[in-house]
Amino acid sequence: MKAAILKGVHQPIMIEEVPTPEIKEDEVLIEIKSAALNHRDLWIQKGQYAGLKFPIILGSDGAGVIHQVDRQVKNITIGQSVVINPSWYWGSNPKVQSKEYRILGLPDNGTFAQYIKVPAIFVYPKPEHLSFSEAAAYPLAGLTAYRATITRAEVQAGEKVLITGIGGGVAFFAMQFALVRGAEVYVTSSSSEKIEKVMSYGVKAGFNYKSPSWEKEALGYTGGFDAIIDGAAGETFTKLIEVCRPGGRIVFYGGTAGIINNVLPAKVFWKQLTIMGSTMGNDTEFESMLEMIKQYKLIPMISHQFTFDNIQAAFEVMDKGEQFGKIVVNF
Amino acid sequence: MKAAILKGVHQPIMIEEVPTPEIKEDEVLIEIKSAALNHRDLWIQKGQYAGLKFPIILGSDGAGVIHQVDRQVKNITIGQSVVINPSWYWGSNPKVQSKEYRILGLPDNGTFAQYIKVPAIFVYPKPEHLSFSEAAAYPLAGLTAYRATITRAEVQAGEKVLITGIGGGVAFFAMQFALVRGAEVYVTSSSSEKIEKVMSYGVKAGFNYKSPSWEKEALGYTGGFDAIIDGAAGETFTKLIEVCRPGGRIVFYGGTAGIINNVLPAKVFWKQLTIMGSTMGNDTEFESMLEMIKQYKLIPMISHQFTFDNIQAAFEVMDKGEQFGKIVVNF
Repeated sequence: MKAAILKGVHQPIMIEEVPTPEIKEDEVLIEIKSAALNHRDLWIQKGQYAGLKFPIILGSDGAGVIHQVDRQVKNITIGQSVVINPSWYWGSNPKVQSKEYRILGLPDNGTFAQYIKVPAIFVYPKPEHLSFSEAAAYPLAGLTAYRATITRAEVQAGEKVLITGIGGGVAFFAMQFALVRGAEVYVTSSSSEKIEKVMSYGVKAGFNYKSPSWEKEALGYTGGFDAIIDGAAGETFTKLIEVCRPGGRIVFYGGTAGIINNVLPAKVFWKQLTIMGSTMGNDTEFESMLEMIKQYKLIPMISHQFTFDNIQAAFEVMDKGEQFGKIVVNF
Repeated sequence: MKAAILKGVHQPIMIEEVPTPEIKEDEVLIEIKSAALNHRDLWIQKGQYAGLKFPIILGSDGAGVIHQVDRQVKNITIGQSVVINPSWYWGSNPKVQSKEYRILGLPDNGTFAQYIKVPAIFVYPKPEHLSFSEAAAYPLAGLTAYRATITRAEVQAGEKVLITGIGGGVAFFAMQFALVRGAEVYVTSSSSEKIEKVMSYGVKAGFNYKSPSWEKEALGYTGGFDAIIDGAAGETFTKLIEVCRPGGRIVFYGGTAGIINNVLPAKVFWKQLTIMGSTMGNDTEFESMLEMIKQYKLIPMISHQFTFDNIQAAFEVMDKGEQFGKIVVNF
């Protein structure tokens, strides 16, 4: 089969011919129709990730068709259209992943290949209203957004919710899920174009975080937010504490802006704030996310599509940060 | 009546003769038998508190006997022994205090006086097993500890709980409440004497936070904590993140060690931590705290007792940090 192989840090992604995986007990072999990129793939290519191992087939997001099934697997049939949960072996505690936990695409070979073998427990029927490209866009970023927004922040109808950095994949899905929950959604971005775009989805307003006093503007306009979903942390985090309403929640699923400094304890305890870290999600959350996607016929925003042979170009788009929405690779 | 009057920042507390308060609708007049000090009183004397107003009778904690009752007040009778909830006008949202919220002892005249007028809704029967001195030790610090430990951290039986700075009043009560919940309780302190003392209450072990690697010792000994109750924040906060178990909670009710810096976002989100600020508590929490005190016949630790005329000496003990337990003033 054809696969996109990464042989070392800072190496290009090479398309090569490798043996098709052989399934074992309780596994299925999926013919990948579409895969999607995540920052994780880029960070691994750059060596900025723990537990590196080469050569590796990257890719956490994939949708395709069942090609072969171990005889012990029930309820999955050859020819079925499926999507893969990339959050493997979460374990029995819904609050936190187990020590066996791993994300598809390192150390296990991922979705950037013609075929992938996957334990049947991580395979779900593709929502019928989604194309393979669309279905491949959801898994990792959608699951992260679902847990952060629904499980952790527990966003409720009528609440004011701020989603920061709306250009990001997780942020966009967090916006979708908060909107279907009936929340009043606001965003931040450095791009007025992106803000305008998401207002067509039902977002009330956006604030440009490059403006030095965006937090005052946001506070004046909204009176503060009941919940904030953030992926940046860093310097701006203290501003999130400012714009969070008393009794509110801040959930962060990433730290692209780095270390958090200058937090005044009294601002947090006097306002009775709850600050939560969140990453990925458990099996129940993946299933609930698919239910929500089906119920509300949600569709992802896809920024760029490439053919599989052009996957290195997809990595370059992500590296330049040119995308708004997911970058998808199709066979 | 005699009252302890503070006339301005950095002034001594003066015992003076002032008019006995006149009760209005729905109020009761309480003859104070015992009052207790809190850091708040000292911070107000030093001018380190918002909304200063002089002259003021300080004091948030008090227990005494009902002397006079407005005719509209039901279920409170003259001669009844009572304790005062110092957490006034919390409001209807259990998650956070309202804009009308205030703490007894500023702006309203407090418990450092022979008599105090109090809205009847903030008056509760004194637990019978407690003396007036003991009952006066609980209200502010106990309520803060109850909300932080029981409502916010939701400490459960069998969990490993770390209480930092066990010398403090809130920390001691947090320890009591966590122990009756059936938690396995650990503490930090700079004093091995204090650690030994609380081990006689059922604490498993203590760690000296002046040791530069106490967090490694704690992690090695316990494997990490499910919940941490902290009143310091500051530099040490990142160590609390280290010793908190994946999926755990850190609640802080104060920030005596100042600003929080150097928080690595990935440490928080990968461990799925929840960090909560908490201060004081609502009416239901005050009532539940009294229930817990009665059910388990809890008794506070009293460090120093003074006669009312000697209240300035009580302030000096607190200023020097010589106490371990509450400082009580008796009439």
